[in-house]
Amino acid sequence: MKIRLATEADRDAIWNIFNEVVVAGDTYALDRNMSREDALAYWFAPGTHAYVAEEDAAGDGIAIHGKPTASPAAIRAREIVGTYIVRPNQAGGGSHVANAAFMVAESARGQGIGRAMAEHCLSEARRLGFRAMQFNFVISTNTAAIHLWQELGFKIVGTLPDAFRYSEKGYVDVYVMYRSLLDR
Amino acid sequence: MKIRLATEADRDAIWNIFNEVVVAGDTYALDRNMSREDALAYWFAPGTHAYVAEEDAAGDGIAIHGKPTASPAAIRAREIVGTYIVRPNQAGGGSHVANAAFMVAESARGQGIGRAMAEHCLSEARRLGFRAMQFNFVISTNTAAIHLWQELGFKIVGTLPDAFRYSEKGYVDVYVMYRSLLDR
Repeated sequence: MKIRLATEADRDAIWNIFNEVVVAGDTYALDRNMSREDALAYWFAPGTHAYVAEEDAAGDGIAIHGKPTASPAAIRAREIVGTYIVRPNQAGGGSHVANAAFMVAESARGQGIGRAMAEHCLSEARRLGFRAMQFNFVISTNTAAIHLWQELGFKIVGTLPDAFRYSEKGYVDVYVMYRSLLDR
Repeated sequence: MKIRLATEADRDAIWNIFNEVVVAGDTYALDRNMSREDALAYWFAPGTHAYVAEEDAAGDGIAIHGKPTASPAAIRAREIVGTYIVRPNQAGGGSHVANAAFMVAESARGQGIGRAMAEHCLSEARRLGFRAMQFNFVISTNTAAIHLWQELGFKIVGTLPDAFRYSEKGYVDVYVMYRSLLDR
């Protein structure tokens, strides 16, 4: 798997993952009906650094109608399996604290892609000169994410009572998580 | 003093207050060089409700060149002394929690205008259907604001270590403050 800066050519793949995550509606406080245009404007906003995780596709190359299938060795289809952004969480006197957001394609979960992107993100945030990283809105039922952030050194520094509304589960608490990037 | 929805005609007055507060740079994590255009786009963003507090001007009416000064009783100049916004703090499943921001003209501080706007804001937030209110970034050195929010029922629910950088004082903690709007 390779993690690299996103380009214009990744927009379709990013939108597919973004839409899947936002429609599911259990991890982000975003409008489930957010348009492709708004989603990509958010992910590629000025001052936001967007990355993708790509890996070799499961198939054996790209089949082109009317031509023999290319050999796996000659053409490897690369598939975007995840994407993340890192950006200043605030402007002015708060701009030394980074914020980040991560999304993994549903079909690619449970393979450590989230963790790999998170580790890449911490390294990029340091390289970009950020002194700390903050997650503003970690939904308390998202235990996989909370566990991962804790393993990566984040602490719950705040609890927002009933700040997220699930369609089924009703209101649940939300955590603010934070870690310094100065200690390694 | 009267608190009412802001209109296009209030843009100059709002920009004057906004710029004064942001240039001072000790209460908001906003770019000190934020342009008038960006500031007003932020204050009048879609989904954001903007208000102003206005009071009778200290002078005795509006002097018009070449005409006798209007009598105080006939024309009272109204002066914008403060402004605030209320809006959803998050989208989607987080949109039932309000966020708000307050600014008082430097020349009008210490007169209870912040408190009056805050009380008005809590009432408006309830009227708009919000279930809670959250301040994301209360700088720990802003003791007057913290004291006021606590008197109005807000609690510190999170502490962000060193999340604000003062030019002189260095890094200081920032609080996340929160209150339910369901109990009165």
